[in-house]
Amino acid sequence: MPKEKESKVSFNLKTPKGTKDWSGSDALLRDRIFTTIADVFKRHGGTALDTPVFELREILAGKYGEDSKLIYDLQDQGGEICSLRYDLTVPFARWLAMNPDVRSMKRYHIAKVYRRDQPAVSKGRMREFYQCDFDIAGTFDPMVPDAEILRIVTEVFEELGWNGRYNIKINHRKILDGVFQVCGVPEEKIRPISSAVDKLDKMPWADVRKEMVDEKGLDGAVADKIETYVVKKGGRDLLDILLKDEALMANESAKAGLEDMSLLMDYLEAFGVLDKMSFDMSLARGLDYYTGVIYEVVTEGSAPAVSSSAPEAQVVQKSGKKSKSKGGNLEDDDRSNDPTLGVGSVAAGGRYDNLVGMFLPKAQIPCVGVSFGVDRIFSITKARIEREKSAEALRSSEVDAYVMAFGGKGFTGMLKERMSVCQTLWNAGVKAEFSYKVKPKLPQQFKAAEQAGVPFAIILGEDELAAGKVRVKEMGLEDGHPEKEGVLVDLAALPAEVKARVAKKQGESVSDVTQQLDDLKVDA
Amino acid sequence: MPKEKESKVSFNLKTPKGTKDWSGSDALLRDRIFTTIADVFKRHGGTALDTPVFELREILAGKYGEDSKLIYDLQDQGGEICSLRYDLTVPFARWLAMNPDVRSMKRYHIAKVYRRDQPAVSKGRMREFYQCDFDIAGTFDPMVPDAEILRIVTEVFEELGWNGRYNIKINHRKILDGVFQVCGVPEEKIRPISSAVDKLDKMPWADVRKEMVDEKGLDGAVADKIETYVVKKGGRDLLDILLKDEALMANESAKAGLEDMSLLMDYLEAFGVLDKMSFDMSLARGLDYYTGVIYEVVTEGSAPAVSSSAPEAQVVQKSGKKSKSKGGNLEDDDRSNDPTLGVGSVAAGGRYDNLVGMFLPKAQIPCVGVSFGVDRIFSITKARIEREKSAEALRSSEVDAYVMAFGGKGFTGMLKERMSVCQTLWNAGVKAEFSYKVKPKLPQQFKAAEQAGVPFAIILGEDELAAGKVRVKEMGLEDGHPEKEGVLVDLAALPAEVKARVAKKQGESVSDVTQQLDDLKVDA
Repeated sequence: MPKEKESKVSFNLKTPKGTKDWSGSDALLRDRIFTTIADVFKRHGGTALDTPVFELREILAGKYGEDSKLIYDLQDQGGEICSLRYDLTVPFARWLAMNPDVRSMKRYHIAKVYRRDQPAVSKGRMREFYQCDFDIAGTFDPMVPDAEILRIVTEVFEELGWNGRYNIKINHRKILDGVFQVCGVPEEKIRPISSAVDKLDKMPWADVRKEMVDEKGLDGAVADKIETYVVKKGGRDLLDILLKDEALMANESAKAGLEDMSLLMDYLEAFGVLDKMSFDMSLARGLDYYTGVIYEVVTEGSAPAVSSSAPEAQVVQKSGKKSKSKGGNLEDDDRSNDPTLGVGSVAAGGRYDNLVGMFLPKAQIPCVGVSFGVDRIFSITKARIEREKSAEALRSSEVDAYVMAFGGKGFTGMLKERMSVCQTLWNAGVKAEFSYKVKPKLPQQFKAAEQAGVPFAIILGEDELAAGKVRVKEMGLEDGHPEKEGVLVDLAALPAEVKARVAKKQGESVSDVTQQLDDLKVDA
Repeated sequence: MPKEKESKVSFNLKTPKGTKDWSGSDALLRDRIFTTIADVFKRHGGTALDTPVFELREILAGKYGEDSKLIYDLQDQGGEICSLRYDLTVPFARWLAMNPDVRSMKRYHIAKVYRRDQPAVSKGRMREFYQCDFDIAGTFDPMVPDAEILRIVTEVFEELGWNGRYNIKINHRKILDGVFQVCGVPEEKIRPISSAVDKLDKMPWADVRKEMVDEKGLDGAVADKIETYVVKKGGRDLLDILLKDEALMANESAKAGLEDMSLLMDYLEAFGVLDKMSFDMSLARGLDYYTGVIYEVVTEGSAPAVSSSAPEAQVVQKSGKKSKSKGGNLEDDDRSNDPTLGVGSVAAGGRYDNLVGMFLPKAQIPCVGVSFGVDRIFSITKARIEREKSAEALRSSEVDAYVMAFGGKGFTGMLKERMSVCQTLWNAGVKAEFSYKVKPKLPQQFKAAEQAGVPFAIILGEDELAAGKVRVKEMGLEDGHPEKEGVLVDLAALPAEVKARVAKKQGESVSDVTQQLDDLKVDA
């Protein structure tokens, strides 16, 4: 009963600002990235934790400093007052506080988080985005879990095929605090000065110094002293220099931090990953809750595509900061349309020993963890696949076989026969499709299989089927290939035959994203 | 710098009403269910679609009838007005309308949805819960995609090991409407009477008749005529009877529906699943947007644990209805604490040909789909595992090897050696853990491995390691077993040795949920 006078439809057909739909080959590639990361997490004994997408508002309150204004609130509809989660760390700390019998845990969590920030969709900076977190909670001997987290970081990027294309910057909050104390920064200025130092990856020292002196009222001589430390980068060599710095070693905080760092480097060496790290004294990280080791992973795409006035400085843009300082209604980044540039760090984390205690002072549990920014990792990975394998179309489904039929005059379409053959394939676990038309034409069926990138056609002919046989034809073979017309196979042997051919082809093919990711790994 | 005067913490340490955290073996089992379902979806050519957790409010408006009051709204924080999604179907229709170049698609979507309903946590009726949806959009020959959806339903429950423990009820909106017309129900009463019929699965006919006559003003004689149809259940036998019913066949709607049903049964037979269906004329389904075939999957746990006044009636409770009629502040179901009873249907769906057109009249795309209620499937599966394998603890992680060390006087703990052996195992893809203590005691390490259910201990001794050897010991072997003390293995051969032993053990073991699910499949 269709209504004649349909009321006029005037929907705003879009997703909310800063959100997007994921479909087709993009969804498949992202899914593959999730699986890769989750496999590494499980390899290290991680257990899954899933928390609600919203929390009681008071749980989130007071955890994110001035970024709290970016939290999405649910409307008060009578009952509890809730907000969408801003990250996965605070819900984990809440869970630990609620489960005081759990004194130690390796947990992973792959889920969406929400921030009412200025989006930059083309760079993967969204209001709704995925985080993949791994955290180790519990009281252990110093630096052992910290080292394993950094080992996990290297495994994830190696598995993703980023060999040699990423850099893990590490530092320690206690070293930084000690440096500031030794240089003469007044106690109440330590956090503001620390946050100025954190900008050294995107602006030159002269600008950072200006912020310290002009905006934050620091003595110029103190700032100059800070410079001698925070521009330093290196590895064990830098650590050795600092360990001989008498002024630093006389400071309790710096000494403790440097000793931690020394132990950490020993352990990273035992894990075979010390060469992937860069000890970077300018790394400070924004969040207040870090108490020990901190780290951040940058890659070729992390730096913004701007001409820097300090080309030697490592320019990495931090999410959310730029838009805040600029303000305005900037819908997207105006500097470059290259989605692989300026995405910022692709993973970051550190030790936070006091967060659980904010929920339950008696249940203090030290934690260390890392969060992977999957949307950014996706943007970079996809761009690389497109660059390196541009001739190959990305597939959106994984179907192996398209069951089709043909016939001469009086052809019935053989729908039930096609269904029955599909049934046999599905029973054997083979991914298979067929046309939903009762009497489809053969070219239509080939076209559908071709468009979906299905590698094998299973062709039913009436006479052949009556003799218990079907034809298996690999799609896209060149003229003159001995199997160009396909091969006849006993119906009973079909599932095994298709499986064997699919397995063989997957060994050769680069036609799906899974394979392409594997290829990138080998290439790298 | 701990503050001396910490302000008093008085958090309400809980998750919001109707939501819960998922951790440990529960999270692992649910994850396994997701994988099982997604594998079936992919086998049928499904491509993933992921949409934002919230939509513009106007997208959801006018789609859910009186259930719209259950929608969670986001607070207006300046900008767009949004709501959390209520299901995955409307976002899919919105996506189709936004992508008019896509004229046909098989999509799947596994994600959380939100309803401000009265929760019944122990039965898996939550305010935040997962749905697993598969839908086929596009204009095809009648009943072909409908039959494939029902085939998918059977594959999912077979893969979950529910062989013989579920029942798929099918019906057709056009048959129902035709029956009502033939019986003399006035046009404007068809939907209310249909919704009364839908309650036949949880109340006896006498009560349903009462609602029709007393509440909805239907003529008693008309109600009696309806009874002769809607209490009928069967298979092809019932269809044959109805196809010979001259009154019904004279009605255009009923005739069209019965012809569809006849075709559907032919196709279900070709797919080998007709015997899993029950043609149930009382099935009406709540949502207004269905236009053709409808179905619902019930299981042993679907029926409520009440003594019914009509024991022959199939009593299945629908989600959300009970609490609405009762009202009040009922936090949980008061009739039974058995989490496997009264969970309602575990999957449901149907054909909806007009929903996409509500967003974009020009882009009318017929659709048919199904939604699996994973939280309910989880409750039933878990209870069955616990019942059938109660002696075995469910594991929360999947670690294969625990690397430990021991030594006599002057034992250093061999931390770096343990790290290095872990590195070797991780490099080979083996899931491995070690103690984060510098000098752990051997019994502590064994206890940790035992508690986590890790099947193999890799034991490092100083002398053995100096000779390039480590000991592999299967946990839990009985006294007198020839390998009770483990076997010495060359360090270089360790990863291959562990992999081989893990593979062998997985062939025998029932100690993890993955294996247990597989066992249920074999048992059933």
